[in-house]
Amino acid sequence: MKYDEIAASVQSEMPAKRWKHTQGVIAESIRLAEKYHANLEQARIAATLHDVAKFWPIERQREVVISENVQNDVLAHDPQLWHAHAGAIVAEHKYGVADPEILRAIRYHTSGRVGMSLLEKIVCLADYIEPGRDFAGVERLRSLAQTSLEEALIYGFGGTIATLIEHGKPIYPLTVLARNDLILQMSQEDKE
Amino acid sequence: MKYDEIAASVQSEMPAKRWKHTQGVIAESIRLAEKYHANLEQARIAATLHDVAKFWPIERQREVVISENVQNDVLAHDPQLWHAHAGAIVAEHKYGVADPEILRAIRYHTSGRVGMSLLEKIVCLADYIEPGRDFAGVERLRSLAQTSLEEALIYGFGGTIATLIEHGKPIYPLTVLARNDLILQMSQEDKE
Repeated sequence: MKYDEIAASVQSEMPAKRWKHTQGVIAESIRLAEKYHANLEQARIAATLHDVAKFWPIERQREVVISENVQNDVLAHDPQLWHAHAGAIVAEHKYGVADPEILRAIRYHTSGRVGMSLLEKIVCLADYIEPGRDFAGVERLRSLAQTSLEEALIYGFGGTIATLIEHGKPIYPLTVLARNDLILQMSQEDKE
Repeated sequence: MKYDEIAASVQSEMPAKRWKHTQGVIAESIRLAEKYHANLEQARIAATLHDVAKFWPIERQREVVISENVQNDVLAHDPQLWHAHAGAIVAEHKYGVADPEILRAIRYHTSGRVGMSLLEKIVCLADYIEPGRDFAGVERLRSLAQTSLEEALIYGFGGTIATLIEHGKPIYPLTVLARNDLILQMSQEDKE
């Protein structure tokens, strides 16, 4: 499928406000990909598709995740996380995206994971800081993004976890592991 | 070994200030055990021994954990957690504590774990709220402890995790899993 067709189809899957957010994530992903020397085309496609399943009924998201026939603990956790996994599956099977790097960037854009690639870091961070975002700490996050994807994501994941604690909600363990892994990467860089 | 001998020996392993803290944890554990119908003698012994290895050189703590010949991920995490595991091993092998419930209450008093027993909850919470403790949120924690061990521990673990985030430090995943598990227990109680 050509890029313009993918974009038009994704737009049709969501309300105008979310499409505006998606456009922000696309622009921010391309900006970060330029800055940190990642592939611009991969960044653009992953960002375009990252929320394709976000506005689907939650049962449809669940069915898509189940259809993969892979053990996936995400279904035992916050349904807010499901759309990312569903999105990766839909990107592959409906939109013909075969590049596993793009599919992983979609799948882990909300939770992060251990061993995030450059592309995964970019799309995940762009989703936090695209121009339409407005939450406590977003300016600090935008500022950190200028110097280190890792520091910015440690801060971003920290904020996500802290918000869950404030609201007395469970924490998805993979986000904790992702944050720990980034802290380890930073400390190893310091030693080099 | 008789209780008074254990207590005297534990006292000799730590500075006066920490022994005072231990006495606070003993008193608080007994108080909580009375309130929540746990075994007072188990609570007293677990609380007495919980920090026995806290002031050992960190290398000695590591050696004790390794001596167990069990795969233990704690050595890959914050050394602040090691004394609890070392303490459980020392309680068994030096002090002759054979009761696995007491040993688990010592081992998981800092991190918590999934499936904490009543005794484990009591010793862990007593360690947070004994009268000598003074940190932001401790009064709220003491107040929660009057009505629910689970709610108090969810709040306590949340505070521990939030502090690690503030300081940019890694989070021990088991504490996150312990907190998630307590939240699940509470929501299941609500349904009953």
